[in-house]
Amino acid sequence: MNAPAWIPYTAPDFGEPRFAAAPPARTVACTADGVLPEGFFATTNLPSYVKGDDGRWTMPREPRMDGCLVRDPDGTWWVREGRRVRRGDLVVVGRAEDGSEGVLVHAHGFEPPEGAAGDFHFMSSQVSREKPIDYSQLARMLVDERRREGYIVWVTGPALVHSRARDNLVWFIRHGFVQALLAGNAVAAHDIEAAVVGTTLGMTSAGLPTEGGHAAHMRAINAVRAAGSITAAVRNGLITDGIMHACVIEEVPFVLGGSIRDDGPLPDVITDAVAAQDAMRVHTVKATMAVMVATALHSIAVGNMLPAYYEDPERGIVELPTICVDASEFLVSKLKDRGTHQAVGVVTNAQDFMSILRSAVEGAMA
Amino acid sequence: MNAPAWIPYTAPDFGEPRFAAAPPARTVACTADGVLPEGFFATTNLPSYVKGDDGRWTMPREPRMDGCLVRDPDGTWWVREGRRVRRGDLVVVGRAEDGSEGVLVHAHGFEPPEGAAGDFHFMSSQVSREKPIDYSQLARMLVDERRREGYIVWVTGPALVHSRARDNLVWFIRHGFVQALLAGNAVAAHDIEAAVVGTTLGMTSAGLPTEGGHAAHMRAINAVRAAGSITAAVRNGLITDGIMHACVIEEVPFVLGGSIRDDGPLPDVITDAVAAQDAMRVHTVKATMAVMVATALHSIAVGNMLPAYYEDPERGIVELPTICVDASEFLVSKLKDRGTHQAVGVVTNAQDFMSILRSAVEGAMA
Amino acid sequence: MNAPAWIPYTAPDFGEPRFAAAPPARTVACTADGVLPEGFFATTNLPSYVKGDDGRWTMPREPRMDGCLVRDPDGTWWVREGRRVRRGDLVVVGRAEDGSEGVLVHAHGFEPPEGAAGDFHFMSSQVSREKPIDYSQLARMLVDERRREGYIVWVTGPALVHSRARDNLVWFIRHGFVQALLAGNAVAAHDIEAAVVGTTLGMTSAGLPTEGGHAAHMRAINAVRAAGSITAAVRNGLITDGIMHACVIEEVPFVLGGSIRDDGPLPDVITDAVAAQDAMRVHTVKATMAVMVATALHSIAVGNMLPAYYEDPERGIVELPTICVDASEFLVSKLKDRGTHQAVGVVTNAQDFMSILRSAVEGAMA
Amino acid sequence: MNAPAWIPYTAPDFGEPRFAAAPPARTVACTADGVLPEGFFATTNLPSYVKGDDGRWTMPREPRMDGCLVRDPDGTWWVREGRRVRRGDLVVVGRAEDGSEGVLVHAHGFEPPEGAAGDFHFMSSQVSREKPIDYSQLARMLVDERRREGYIVWVTGPALVHSRARDNLVWFIRHGFVQALLAGNAVAAHDIEAAVVGTTLGMTSAGLPTEGGHAAHMRAINAVRAAGSITAAVRNGLITDGIMHACVIEEVPFVLGGSIRDDGPLPDVITDAVAAQDAMRVHTVKATMAVMVATALHSIAVGNMLPAYYEDPERGIVELPTICVDASEFLVSKLKDRGTHQAVGVVTNAQDFMSILRSAVEGAMA
Repeated sequence: MNAPAWIPYTAPDFGEPRFAAAPPARTVACTADGVLPEGFFATTNLPSYVKGDDGRWTMPREPRMDGCLVRDPDGTWWVREGRRVRRGDLVVVGRAEDGSEGVLVHAHGFEPPEGAAGDFHFMSSQVSREKPIDYSQLARMLVDERRREGYIVWVTGPALVHSRARDNLVWFIRHGFVQALLAGNAVAAHDIEAAVVGTTLGMTSAGLPTEGGHAAHMRAINAVRAAGSITAAVRNGLITDGIMHACVIEEVPFVLGGSIRDDGPLPDVITDAVAAQDAMRVHTVKATMAVMVATALHSIAVGNMLPAYYEDPERGIVELPTICVDASEFLVSKLKDRGTHQAVGVVTNAQDFMSILRSAVEGAMA
Repeated sequence: MNAPAWIPYTAPDFGEPRFAAAPPARTVACTADGVLPEGFFATTNLPSYVKGDDGRWTMPREPRMDGCLVRDPDGTWWVREGRRVRRGDLVVVGRAEDGSEGVLVHAHGFEPPEGAAGDFHFMSSQVSREKPIDYSQLARMLVDERRREGYIVWVTGPALVHSRARDNLVWFIRHGFVQALLAGNAVAAHDIEAAVVGTTLGMTSAGLPTEGGHAAHMRAINAVRAAGSITAAVRNGLITDGIMHACVIEEVPFVLGGSIRDDGPLPDVITDAVAAQDAMRVHTVKATMAVMVATALHSIAVGNMLPAYYEDPERGIVELPTICVDASEFLVSKLKDRGTHQAVGVVTNAQDFMSILRSAVEGAMA
Repeated sequence: MNAPAWIPYTAPDFGEPRFAAAPPARTVACTADGVLPEGFFATTNLPSYVKGDDGRWTMPREPRMDGCLVRDPDGTWWVREGRRVRRGDLVVVGRAEDGSEGVLVHAHGFEPPEGAAGDFHFMSSQVSREKPIDYSQLARMLVDERRREGYIVWVTGPALVHSRARDNLVWFIRHGFVQALLAGNAVAAHDIEAAVVGTTLGMTSAGLPTEGGHAAHMRAINAVRAAGSITAAVRNGLITDGIMHACVIEEVPFVLGGSIRDDGPLPDVITDAVAAQDAMRVHTVKATMAVMVATALHSIAVGNMLPAYYEDPERGIVELPTICVDASEFLVSKLKDRGTHQAVGVVTNAQDFMSILRSAVEGAMA
Repeated sequence: MNAPAWIPYTAPDFGEPRFAAAPPARTVACTADGVLPEGFFATTNLPSYVKGDDGRWTMPREPRMDGCLVRDPDGTWWVREGRRVRRGDLVVVGRAEDGSEGVLVHAHGFEPPEGAAGDFHFMSSQVSREKPIDYSQLARMLVDERRREGYIVWVTGPALVHSRARDNLVWFIRHGFVQALLAGNAVAAHDIEAAVVGTTLGMTSAGLPTEGGHAAHMRAINAVRAAGSITAAVRNGLITDGIMHACVIEEVPFVLGGSIRDDGPLPDVITDAVAAQDAMRVHTVKATMAVMVATALHSIAVGNMLPAYYEDPERGIVELPTICVDASEFLVSKLKDRGTHQAVGVVTNAQDFMSILRSAVEGAMA
């Protein structure tokens, strides 16, 4: 893990002639709901600025990649998914990212300090199982976020539950380190199976199969369906411990996005992918840190809607720390290939990561 | 790849006293839509039999794992997902799988011939990059299926498109080896991006980035949204080649299941996960072979709804050949861990698999 | 991790007629040094018995796979590598492993207790990152071995050093949990680089490159070459901490086997592969437990020379616990494919494994 | 695969004042065999220049990383491994790589043409299974090398043999595309096992075990030991096909480096790691291209001793094309982390790579 230290942001100098000379961004009205005008500007997750008719450069609100730029009647710029535009919405057109058409993508605002001299180094890969993980730095980041009342979004996959890292995630929830949990049906289903039956997919915590165990998750899901919701199942005493229980008790919001491979699903799952994205984005627009553990699908999904920066009241524009934990280097590489370049990879398994991180945070709090 | 040769099926001997003595399966009526009775029998993907009140053992229709057994008014047994039961439906209860409660899971109907003697062997893993892939056998299987007018379901991920195996999949579609294509938004979006712009996620077929290329897939999706559907975009000349084009022209049905990480999505995507599963199952119940290439999400999804066998008019009950291709052993292992035990793993990349398989099929047809 | 519980051994019943009727093992004299007679019996790592001319079945000494059976003049049976036989040595010929030619490979002496009923289970893979690791059981095994004065052989790769798990391995050495360390040049070179310069391959413990860092390991190796040996470099104050330092101070034997990719190498490295194997086998014949961390080369090498069992004074024949830790399932699968079927896989990174295992052992000792 | 196109080299301008002002490289005599002077200059695999007492900057001969710079009595500069220096040898000291102490590491001689504009791209990873492999370009490179009478070094692991890519490697040997084969005992042993018995580690070409198959490689090795050498075993008719047979018949030199995990080994194996390195380096100093297939150990070993460039009579200094094929991105990343930054990764299995590459080369030759 290369240390994701806090790097001060250098804003563009809009006093430069090329910015003064640039025209304001040009907009075209949409002619149909959910269809963008030819030549629309496609956003990135990097700090960006749009020039208005008044000559001012402003950052659009709710930034993300793969969106378009919409100007509200009051002149505010928004980043919005193409499917959400409506007939008549004014959308920016133009492809230049250097400001010359009124939109600037400012890629070099975060420049790390000079590295070591020389051009030949070993161990220069961005992510590798062979590199040390600095858990104490991760712990400090989490403790700092909590102190600053940041908004830490956790994204998790079912391996976290199978590997019995549940207790540690519960601990983070109970101690105020989780502001939103974004996951899928499986995480909740196996967590609840563990709470109700003691197994995950019929496997005990010792990794052994149980008699008839292949049905255990179906029975757990069915019981929650009978109760009506996870919250109802917590309230009626069906679910007495675990991740979902902690979210309900601690009032930590969770979004369970549906997927084509869901069993059940649980009644709380948002089965419509577009609605689930919208529900998740409510949290990503507030995020000040993201921790993604053992999920390709949801890490890439959340990475897509997550800006690479946010505006902090104390420190101004800062990079959005994005930690991606997986057993394989490939996921982190794939996440970066999908544009989440700010991701810092941690190559280990979910169980060990959660266990050591908790110890480190306990140490940092002491 | 261990050779998935055709193995004759040995049906249970229902003349055995234990089967004669067994009671008929007991059913309980559902009291609410989508909620199963306590103690419901959970199905597997193995050949199964239910004993009716008339004393006959019959195989339920539309088998899959993680379903329940429903008796229709006319006495027919069906396997159905729990979410699809309605108040009053009669659902089998009981957990025994040995027939003693009227349901038999017949796990040993397909016994491979005796293996080599001795207890100590090297290279005994089920799936490994170090094992030879028998492409000529795979090719014969495909050619046989086409001759028998089987129903070959292909399940693919976007790596197939990024790696430029499009042409080879088109060849299989055009030559009658694809009866249904099950995929997600990304496969279609990048295939169409390649057709319209020539890139996938902005990457050329030489693997190089293009100027402004990060927007290419968004422009492609937007153009299809403007056209209204993929079929319309083929008809209006926007899409002139590739996988989706071939499906439209050859009238091969496709199902695009939505996911939380979709850009756009394309108008043809079924964004509701439950509806998408239902649409895919229309094809899996007809499947006589499945080929899964470079997708964890959809391989596991389809594996969940796929029986491990089917009834062939000529040969009776036969194993359903399920080929799973991935760059890593882990996916095949995970697929088996999710119950798709019949999967035969091929560890390679999508581009090479498609290229060699096509050559082998061309050879087998000659 | 499937629990490697202690399983009582069931010896063959040599009173059975087939064993009584079997001829004694037939031997043929070697006609040249290092060349075996046609049709020689090739050993496995499973419990095996040879029938002598006196009709007694005895277990050969120093068992391993890929060896031959040699009868000493006094009638003792030995397992020996083919390269070590000398002209005139009496070597067993025959291929039958069922005793019918005087050699019995007893594969089923260790039968685990009955598993869960039913034939359909999820999560049935042997090794997966999704399965829980039972560190407390591992810790108990280590503590038990120490109490019993067992001989725990550690096999490690350089990732353990790069990831800064050095301190934890030092802890195990200092507390009596390491009876022998088997490794290569890189482990020692980077450990010494860390002791002398503070980096590994020029990378700091924060994962960052250092100026001119690519030369750091060469300077460390050169300094030890100047001192004459690792022990001399510890004694003269060059090496003041780390794994090699602890081995020297605690008098824990280490074997550094040379490899084609070695830099230097360090003067202690046994550059001849055959001599290095012989030096390692001195320890494997005494092993009562093996812990292999983050090395394909040495894990497979040691697995090759390690029996799957040993004779414990208290408990008789017991399985030899063999723990294999790697970031990927593939290594454990490959190790089994090379015959080390008794290996129990732990899928995680070296840093986290060492950290949690130490905490668990500290807990088990308290 | 990012296209490794031929890039013209830009030599340093030694007319610059800073180069003219630099002192000649300073040398110190070694005081013991195999021990370098304090502060020795450690080489890289990049184009480098040393300033002599005559003021001329020259490139040292036989470049590689992790070596030192030795001045011969006649003033010639050599790169040499530290273990090979002798008492009295004059070795360059100094750490500066910018020429200021008389040694220049010229890292930027090969600058690729300007890339696509913009700072945000998808699919920007260096190596990924999702990227297309341009086999036709690889084929052209091989055909060009053969035409230019280049020296193509192949480095292979046993997976190539297990996966039955033997025939295709034989084809490359027979058609003049292999000037040297660098491998280990296992490649030769399993290749010969396949020639003599028809299996590899007892596994048939259909991936199935054979009776008593675990001994097959030991029998093959023993037969070659009896013959005295691989060449003798080819001459006496024991080995009638395969890779080693082709090398012997076509007089392609091979080096088999010993390793700690070798069975046997075969009589041709150089069991001393240092001697094996020296034997391999005879070929790497002549290399104009390297193809590494499915071996971590030997790829890294050869990468260590391979310069990143060579001097071509026609084109001057050119990059040394280094193709690394593995089923996992990790190996290529690790190879780069060990300094072989010029490696171009191909993520696929050995069987498929060899099959498609051969077809492509046959196409390019037609």
